[in-house]
Parts: sequence; structure tokens; C-alpha cells
Amino acid sequence: MVFVLKKNVSKEKIDTFVKKIESEGFSTFLSTGTEHTVVCLIGNTASIDLDQIVATNDIVEYGKRVTEPYKGVNRTAHPEDTLVRIEDVTLGEGYFNVISGPCSVESEEQIIAVAKAVKASGASMLRGGAFKPRSSPYAFQGLHAEGIRLLLLAKKETGLPIVSEIMNISQIPLFDEVDVIQIGARNMQNFDLLKELGRLKKPVVLKRGFANTIEEFLMSAEYIISGGNSEIILCERGIRTFETMTRNTLDLSAVALLKQKSHLPVIVDPSHAAGISSLVPALSKAAIAIGADGLLIETHNDPEHALCDGAQSLNPEQFEALMHQIRKRAVFEGKYIKENA
Amino acid sequence: MVFVLKKNVSKEKIDTFVKKIESEGFSTFLSTGTEHTVVCLIGNTASIDLDQIVATNDIVEYGKRVTEPYKGVNRTAHPEDTLVRIEDVTLGEGYFNVISGPCSVESEEQIIAVAKAVKASGASMLRGGAFKPRSSPYAFQGLHAEGIRLLLLAKKETGLPIVSEIMNISQIPLFDEVDVIQIGARNMQNFDLLKELGRLKKPVVLKRGFANTIEEFLMSAEYIISGGNSEIILCERGIRTFETMTRNTLDLSAVALLKQKSHLPVIVDPSHAAGISSLVPALSKAAIAIGADGLLIETHNDPEHALCDGAQSLNPEQFEALMHQIRKRAVFEGKYIKENA
Amino acid sequence: MVFVLKKNVSKEKIDTFVKKIESEGFSTFLSTGTEHTVVCLIGNTASIDLDQIVATNDIVEYGKRVTEPYKGVNRTAHPEDTLVRIEDVTLGEGYFNVISGPCSVESEEQIIAVAKAVKASGASMLRGGAFKPRSSPYAFQGLHAEGIRLLLLAKKETGLPIVSEIMNISQIPLFDEVDVIQIGARNMQNFDLLKELGRLKKPVVLKRGFANTIEEFLMSAEYIISGGNSEIILCERGIRTFETMTRNTLDLSAVALLKQKSHLPVIVDPSHAAGISSLVPALSKAAIAIGADGLLIETHNDPEHALCDGAQSLNPEQFEALMHQIRKRAVFEGKYIKENA
Amino acid sequence: MVFVLKKNVSKEKIDTFVKKIESEGFSTFLSTGTEHTVVCLIGNTASIDLDQIVATNDIVEYGKRVTEPYKGVNRTAHPEDTLVRIEDVTLGEGYFNVISGPCSVESEEQIIAVAKAVKASGASMLRGGAFKPRSSPYAFQGLHAEGIRLLLLAKKETGLPIVSEIMNISQIPLFDEVDVIQIGARNMQNFDLLKELGRLKKPVVLKRGFANTIEEFLMSAEYIISGGNSEIILCERGIRTFETMTRNTLDLSAVALLKQKSHLPVIVDPSHAAGISSLVPALSKAAIAIGADGLLIETHNDPEHALCDGAQSLNPEQFEALMHQIRKRAVFEGKYIKENA
Repeated sequence: MVFVLKKNVSKEKIDTFVKKIESEGFSTFLSTGTEHTVVCLIGNTASIDLDQIVATNDIVEYGKRVTEPYKGVNRTAHPEDTLVRIEDVTLGEGYFNVISGPCSVESEEQIIAVAKAVKASGASMLRGGAFKPRSSPYAFQGLHAEGIRLLLLAKKETGLPIVSEIMNISQIPLFDEVDVIQIGARNMQNFDLLKELGRLKKPVVLKRGFANTIEEFLMSAEYIISGGNSEIILCERGIRTFETMTRNTLDLSAVALLKQKSHLPVIVDPSHAAGISSLVPALSKAAIAIGADGLLIETHNDPEHALCDGAQSLNPEQFEALMHQIRKRAVFEGKYIKENA
Repeated sequence: MVFVLKKNVSKEKIDTFVKKIESEGFSTFLSTGTEHTVVCLIGNTASIDLDQIVATNDIVEYGKRVTEPYKGVNRTAHPEDTLVRIEDVTLGEGYFNVISGPCSVESEEQIIAVAKAVKASGASMLRGGAFKPRSSPYAFQGLHAEGIRLLLLAKKETGLPIVSEIMNISQIPLFDEVDVIQIGARNMQNFDLLKELGRLKKPVVLKRGFANTIEEFLMSAEYIISGGNSEIILCERGIRTFETMTRNTLDLSAVALLKQKSHLPVIVDPSHAAGISSLVPALSKAAIAIGADGLLIETHNDPEHALCDGAQSLNPEQFEALMHQIRKRAVFEGKYIKENA
Repeated sequence: MVFVLKKNVSKEKIDTFVKKIESEGFSTFLSTGTEHTVVCLIGNTASIDLDQIVATNDIVEYGKRVTEPYKGVNRTAHPEDTLVRIEDVTLGEGYFNVISGPCSVESEEQIIAVAKAVKASGASMLRGGAFKPRSSPYAFQGLHAEGIRLLLLAKKETGLPIVSEIMNISQIPLFDEVDVIQIGARNMQNFDLLKELGRLKKPVVLKRGFANTIEEFLMSAEYIISGGNSEIILCERGIRTFETMTRNTLDLSAVALLKQKSHLPVIVDPSHAAGISSLVPALSKAAIAIGADGLLIETHNDPEHALCDGAQSLNPEQFEALMHQIRKRAVFEGKYIKENA
Repeated sequence: MVFVLKKNVSKEKIDTFVKKIESEGFSTFLSTGTEHTVVCLIGNTASIDLDQIVATNDIVEYGKRVTEPYKGVNRTAHPEDTLVRIEDVTLGEGYFNVISGPCSVESEEQIIAVAKAVKASGASMLRGGAFKPRSSPYAFQGLHAEGIRLLLLAKKETGLPIVSEIMNISQIPLFDEVDVIQIGARNMQNFDLLKELGRLKKPVVLKRGFANTIEEFLMSAEYIISGGNSEIILCERGIRTFETMTRNTLDLSAVALLKQKSHLPVIVDPSHAAGISSLVPALSKAAIAIGADGLLIETHNDPEHALCDGAQSLNPEQFEALMHQIRKRAVFEGKYIKENA
């Protein structure tokens, strides 16, 4: 951490400032120039509130963090790619996996039909929502425990590991047999939930909040990894911008940056980003090309009657056609992708 | 809800579409023009997923919701302003209240010093964080139960009702004696938490998420009110934009719109919006002028050593000076404001 | 400008880097710490491309500009407030002026009616568009030279100085008798136009681009002032965000910051920001309270039939009512405001 | 265009409203329901200001445009893809072209070196800036006429057609021999300039403004095409968001949507979007996969000493390596791409 002091600050004031910092356990070194004095801090500065020091010390012109505030998820500390293993599925660099299923579990018939369809087309995991965050209290909120039960039934039927979203710490026991827990975009900074999942030994799909920076995203992953759980799959799903033709703006640069800065697997959810199913194939292709390790795609056996987010769901035929494209492209990128069942 | 169908759609397809909608319990009426047919739905359409109908019915050109999706918080259904009473404090139209205190409770000495100071300057409630959402897992996270205990001590000492942020359903019992529960920006769409607070009989300060629209904000309030709790205080605290000179961009138009569309009290948090204490007085003045019912201002006895967000905190002298300005302006607006203690 | 070098960089590489910088005419000073070496540049660094140095020199960890890149508009270099005088109108700190008129000049009858009305209510200048930037080529584009002629006629009739928007360098001769030239939001970074206006001796209203930062805004003013023209009035008119209930989000923090960082007058355009006339009074009040030096308000004698932007125009009765409010508030702030005519 | 009227509006008021609309030359048809009356307009509504009608007619609840406001660039009116031919280069669907060169022309030596290098690697056109929009008046602004002269020299030397940015109508004569005129992001809504280029018979690269919607982008192209010039190449180059790790957020969904809604070629500029050269290869790959017709990539023979935007430039070796990747991928997509020279 570096502080540049204002011009012509008295030696006395500088001493006071330096002593204050050293009293908190840091070493410093000073460089005194003709105009500004620069104070550098040595030590683990992750717990320091930089803005506060600048705002509350009159003599400081500005300060800057030199090292990144995330450590556990940082590639510099852990150069090899993390591979997350879920039963016979391996997720991470060198592999390409498609997770698919409906936005929400609606009935036994529906989830089993979708599970069989996406498995037949080559999906390696089944996703389905039992707890649904909906902006309106009057909209369908999911089947809750019954939804989890049906997902487990679908797993039994097809063998596909299952991914489902948690909304709340108190739901953790219900996710005992769920293979991968998803944290939705709205919960990316639900820090208590992150901490709890850090204590589990269960893979987590962490979705980027729609208004969170890449650094904040990595800091949320840091919450989980610092608790001891490094089985984290990052998921880019679009950010909020002024554009209205798509629901969100898929930030594919983020995928490239996340792969560069972190050792964790990164997947992309084109369905939520676009909000319209007709864009899903194009965005999927771009995601593969930029280096994503997988896709999270909504498929519904009957999008017209889906109880939630039907607008962005593919039907099984569309999913089958897209998987054909995806497989060709993953192979082109030199990735391992599961054979068509 | 209105659907405009595409040009030259066959009568048969229109019939199928209309039957499908009517089978879900809605009446419809059709207008057949020379180009487009328009289908209007009658009934409570709050549970309908508009985008999905458009996306999954080929014959629909576009659809539009005519009525607002929030009912309980809507001024049309409840024209008089809601007044929230907390002990001897009345919050809402016609009154002006300042809630102040430190970002986080740090010690008995600190919280009591700040409580006495803000009371002396005319604050009508004390805020202080016991559970702190921090983007870094390595930053100070609050004193938790001990923080609540110290707040209650400060209340005992000064008589000021207290406001504190909850992060999690499981913390509700700890807030039993807390006068007002705050839901932070990151939890504005933590729907499970909203539902739980809807079941309590306790006032709630609901902060706008930094990337949520005004409509989403009202829908989150709707979660609480539809559960039976109408003691909701809306709080605008800045939204994320491309501007970097302030931490967030305070959206004062939102205050005017919220007062117009809803009957709930609306307050403003200039400290979090700006992220720098020097802007707090200017933003406070603008908030009063635009019709806010109160302010939430960070004050710390020693901002330089605050464990969190010191950069945006006023010290007691600055707060005292600002309260002098605020009182003059609230009186100018014809609002009742508490006398200086 | 300060550069922090990476850890463990060889002395040789540092020397090469320093020589390169000194060869471009800067002095440097180095501070060598146990971890990082810091290089500070002395001299006028305004022409240096900081990002490029960081990106193209492997040994640089990061760089930071210590001094603001704008000089002429900077309050540090010019502590007193600039007052812009237009005939008998004085614009700047201590004064409050309302500029009003229709979005576009449509006819002699219209512009004279509006001019008389806004004068009667206390506006100190008349604005009206002769050249209109419209997103559609099929929308009304203004009366051009004829519009300017009609504005001058309205000035003759009422004595109000006139403000009109320029879109193009080639139009400058047409603005010879126009009192104040406005640069619209879309032209804030039309640098050739800024340079030309820098050569004129005529006041300029410079509107903030709807996606430009405060620093970029000041840099655009710097283009004008560095050409020799310091009669610049900055105008905040809303920025683009994800919010859709208002056309743009009025950034009132920007007003406070611009007044702090620069010595130029700052006015606010609530009509374009909101896009709906019902919000104009509330935003006007907030703008006065935060310290704006004036307002730019759209008034049309017949908003219903306006050829452009009628949705945001007040009619003369609404304007009269608002001026009553504005006058009371400007007086409250201790500002001089023109008496009702 | 459809208007839904408020509930319980009197027949008289509806008649007045309908007559007013019909007096402006539109046919209408009404549908009277039990709650709302719906008024549909028939005719070319491109010139109607929808918001204004809603805002200024009390009886209107809301209005909605049913047809897209752009016609000339709309694929519905012109289903085949437009191919733009520049000497022996064909740009558009089925072809893939890379345009490369430095941000600005600095010297004869520089531009000829870069031109030879990018030609050797397979670029089909040379870009170079002679007029540079820079946010600071103190930054290098380009060589102007001399820059154009040097570009023509480079064309003579290599045979590559040239692309250069115009900032101003008065510069048009200087672009007489320039093959393709570029309109930069800051000029996307410089409507006078768009109109002038609509009168030329010369291909135009139109860059999306960094805060403009896809619809506004198409409307700006509409300005050019409605003037008679349909040789337009759309260029996505990133939009402004809250993310700070990249300079802008490349909006690749826009590429897919533009190709769907319009018949014009669409290219992508990954260099300006990212602002950092290390992201250029990844974004280029994604752009090809999503269906872009080409790329605009900055290459500089000596990025370290570039006078502008060196941070985002590749050096010739990096460009050569990237072209190898690009060629493989364009072939994979079934596109025609120029052989390596």
C-alpha cells in the first residue's frame, strides 16, 4: 500500500502519520522527493481500509493498494487450475461441461422429462430451482423441499448430478444430497451465507451479482475459500447497463479476466443474461471461444407453460441442436466434452 | 395487460391463444383492427409472467402491463401518507427526522459517546451496525450480539430509539428489543428475509439496492407489506453508475417518485451514497428540498480510527453544524423537526 | 505522477526506465524500499499517457496521476468564482438565474409568446433550439437560420438575452448575435467544436454528456478555456443508468463537486434529466439547495403540440408557479435573483 | 402505435383525442373494453413523438410503438445481407476481414512499417488516425492533413485500402482519397456529420457510442442510409458500465442482435473496448464465434512509444500470432478470409 502525501507537509506531521501506521503493526518506508513524500506500507494490508486513511488524514493526497485484496482465489498464489470433481464430472480448465434444466422444478413429470432430454443431448449435470428468488411476492416461488425431493428423483432416474440454488442458511440441511449448491446473483454478497458454504465440503456455483465488479466477485469467492472450501465454480451471468434490448449485458471480458486472475473454473449463463432464448446459441458460442469452462443453460420441456422464466428457456429440440454446435466447438478448443449419451 | 398480435394472424390461432389465457382464469376482450388485433386481459394479472407469454407465443408482437405490479405500497390504493411511530418519534410526511450514529458499534465507550453527541445535536434515533456486510472476509465484520447489547445500553443512556442492520433470518431473535430493523442494500432482494420481516410487528428501514430499479424497490417493500407489516421506511442510498468521483450516484429523482407512487416514508442516506464526508452536507440539503422525510447520517466520535467506513463519517462537531442547517431547512419546508436537546 | 515498480526488479531495468522518462523532459526521484521501488515524476505531466506507460513497461506495477489533469478550470489555480456577464445578467456564485424557453423554436408566434411569458415570470434569459439533435432522421430537426432569426426577434421584443444550441462549426457565423452558445450533451466531446468556441469571446453553456464522468466534463471545459475563453457555464443534465422510470438520472452530487473543483458557474437542466414535466419542480428545488447557480427549464406555450420534447415542458402557468417557489428558495440561500418583471 | 387510455374516460374526451390524431394524418381504430379503451394508429408513425403524446394527454395511460423506428437499415425491409466492397475487399456476411493499424499516424516510417507488417500478417485494410479525439486538450491530437498524406503513401506502398476517422464536416475534402471514413464513438450522434456522409458515395465505419443503445445505433445508421449511402459498416466497441477492470464492457450480444435486426455488416473493436492489449486475443475469438464480420485491431510497431493508446496496441509479432488464430477460426465458421500475404 502506498500513500502519496500532499506538497510541503511538515516533517512533524509526517512523523505522526508514520507512527500511527506503525502502531497498527506495519513497517513503512519513506521516499522524500522535492515535491511529495511517499509512504509505503509493508505487511499484510488486506484488513486496512484505504479510503478511510485517505479521508481522515489531511496530509494524505491519495493512497493505492498495490497488491490484490484476494489471496486464496488468486492465481499468483495457486498457479495451477482448480478442477472441481462431482461424481464422474470434472469441471475446470481442459474440460467443457453443460449444466442444463428448467428455471424451476414444477412437477415430477416435468423434471424427469427435462432431465432425460438434457442427458440424452449430452448435459453433464441437471439444474433446477426449488427456491426461486422472484421480484414479485405474487409470483411462483418454487416447490421448496418438494422441489429438492423431485430433483433427487430425477438424479436417480438419469444419474445426472444435480445443481440447485439456495437462498438461505436455514435451508442447508435440505441440500444435503444436492451435488452442487448454487448461490444466485442476488445473494453474491450475502456474506453470512457465503461463510456457511465455506464450511461445507460441497461444490458451489457462485453467480456474479448483476451490479458487482469482477473484484467484488472474487472477494465473494474469497469468503468461501477462506472458510476452507475451494470447490468454487464462478458463473458470469450478465450485468446491468442502460441497454434495454437484452435483460442484462453478458460481460464476456470478465470470463477472460477471471480465468487470468483466478485458478477457479468459470462458466457462463447465457439464458439469464439475454433473457431471450433466441440469443442463447450465439452467446454460448462466444463463451466457448473466450475460454469458459462450461455453460448453464435453461431448458424446459414446455417453455410456453413454464412457471418462471419461460422466455429464456430452450425446448429439448433447441437444446439438442445447440449441444451439437457446442460439442464441435469445445472439441475445436481442445477441451474434453462428454459424449452424447 | 394488453397484447398486440402480429399482422395477419389467422382467426384460429387467435382463438387458441385466447382460450389458453382464459383457461388460466382471466377474462379477455379483443379489438380487431385492419392491421393488428389487440387482446386485453381483465383480472388480477400480478402473477402473470408477461415476458414469457410474449416469448413463447409466436403470434404476439408485444405485451404490456397496464397496472403497476405493486398494490399494498401503491398510493392509488392507500392515498394517505403512512406515518411510522417509534416510541415518541413519528416518521413520514410532515415530519423530518435524522437518524445518526456510527457505521459499526465498536465499544461501549464509542457508542455511548456518539449517542450522546447525536442526541445533543437533535438526532431522533441512533443507528449503529452490529452485523456488517463487508466485501472482504478479512475486514471487521461487527461485534454481533455484543454490538446489539451495546446499542441497547446506549438507548438506555440517551433514550434514543435504535436502528440496526440485520443480515440473516437467524438473527431475528437478537433484534427483539431493537426498535427498527434495517435491511441493507445488498439484502434488498433477500426475499426470504423480507418475508420474515413481513411477519413481525416492527418498523423496517429498507434500503434500495445499488443496482435496483425504483419498481424493484417497491416490489421488495411489497414483500413486507403483503406479509402484514406496513411499517416500512424506504431509504435511497445511491446507485452504481460509471462515475468514479463519488462511491455511488445519489438518485434524488427516486425520492420524488417514491413519494408520488407510494404512501410510505422515504429517507436518504447521503453518507453511503457519496462515500466522502465532505459531500454529506450538500446532499442532505438537496434531500430535504426534494421532499425526503428524513436522513440517515454517519457520525463517529473518531472517524480517523473508525473500524469501518470512516471516510464517509462526520465527527460530532461536523454533525452539530449540519444539524443546524438541516433544522432551518426542515422548518422552511414546513416540516416538524425535533428541537435541539 | 507516481509509478510503483514490481517486486525484485533489477537495477539495470530500473535505470533504463528512468532514463527513458527523463529523455522526455521530466525529472524523477526514486525511493527504494525493501519490496517495491517508487518512481515519482516532476514536471507538467498533463501530456503523458499514464495507462500506456503502465501497459508497455513490464516492470511497472501501477501508476497514478497525483495532480488533476485540468488546470485552467481548476479552482486551485483560480480560487475566486468566475462570474459570467451577459448584458445585465450576472451568472455565477451569489446569483441565481433561470433560463427558460421551448426545446425548439417553431414559429414567430410561439417563441414570442413563450419569451413574454417566461420574462413575466422572472426568467433572465430565453433559450430556444434552432438546430435540434434528434435520434431519428425522420423527426423535426429545427428551423435552422430561421429559428435564430426568430430568437433575435423575441429578444428584441422582450429584452431577454438568448441561448441557443450549436451543432457544428460551420454554424458559428449564424450565432453572431446570439448571446450564449449552448453545446449539447451529445457534443460535449466534439473537440473541434470546443476548440473553435475557445477562440470566440462569447459565453458558452457546456452540457455534460450523458455518459461522461465529471473529470471528462471538466476536461471539455478545459478545451474551451485553454483557447482563451473562460466564459463557461457548466450544465448538469442527467446521466444514463439502468433506471427506466426517468429518462436520465440527475446527478446532483456532480453539482456540488463541480462547484468545489472548479471556479465556473454550474447550472442544472431538470427537464432533460427527468424527461417528464411533473418531476421538474422537485428537481429544481433540490438543485437550488445543493448550490447550483441557475436552472435551464423547458417551457412551451402549448406542450401538447410541441414539435419536440413536449413531454418534459412546463406550460406558462406551471412555470409561473415554479418561479414563485424558486425565488423563495434562492432568497433563502442568500442568492440574488431577478425580481418578477 | 398503440395507446391504452385510462379507466372510465368519457366518450367525449376520447373523441377529442382521436380527432386530434386523425388531424395529423393517421387512421385510427378503437377497441372499447370493460376497463380500458385502446386506440391504434395506422400509418407511418416514425415522425411521432410517442412520449409527448403520453405526457400531454391526460387520458392516455401509456403508449407503445409497435413497429421499429428504423426502416432503411431494417432487415425486414431488406432481407439479404449488404456486402460492402472496397477495392478487392468484400465486407459482410460470409467474409471475414481484419482492419489493423496504429491508433494514430505518427510518421512516414511508422505508418509504412505498420502497414507492411499488418499486410504480411493478413490484414485486408489499414486503419490509422489523422484526427484524434482526445479527452485532454494537452494530449497529441494527430497529424491532420499530413496524417492523411502518410496514409495514402502507405496505401501506395502496400496496396491496402485505408480507413481513417473524421471529426468534422469541414474535413470531408481531405478524405477524398480515403477508402473508408470512420465515425468515432463520440460522434455517433453528430447528426450533421451523419447527414453529410449520407450524401457521399463512400463506405463508412460507424462506431457505437459508448453510452448508446442498440436502437440509437441503428437510428444513427438510418441517418446515413436515408441520405442515400448504404455502404455502412457497424462497429461495436464497448459500452460504459460500473466495471473498472476493463476500459469499457464489450457488448457481444449487440453483435448478434445487430446482425439479426439489420442487413449491414458488423465488426468489433476489441482494442478500444478492453483498453488493455492482453485481452484483445480472447475478445477477438469471441467476436468471431458470435458472428461478427470482421475486427478492427490496433497494431503499433512500437507500442511503448506510441503517441496515443499504446496500452491497447499489439506489436507486429503479437498481431501475427493473433491472425493465425483468427484465420483458423474464421475458416471454422465457414467464412472467407484473405490468405496470408
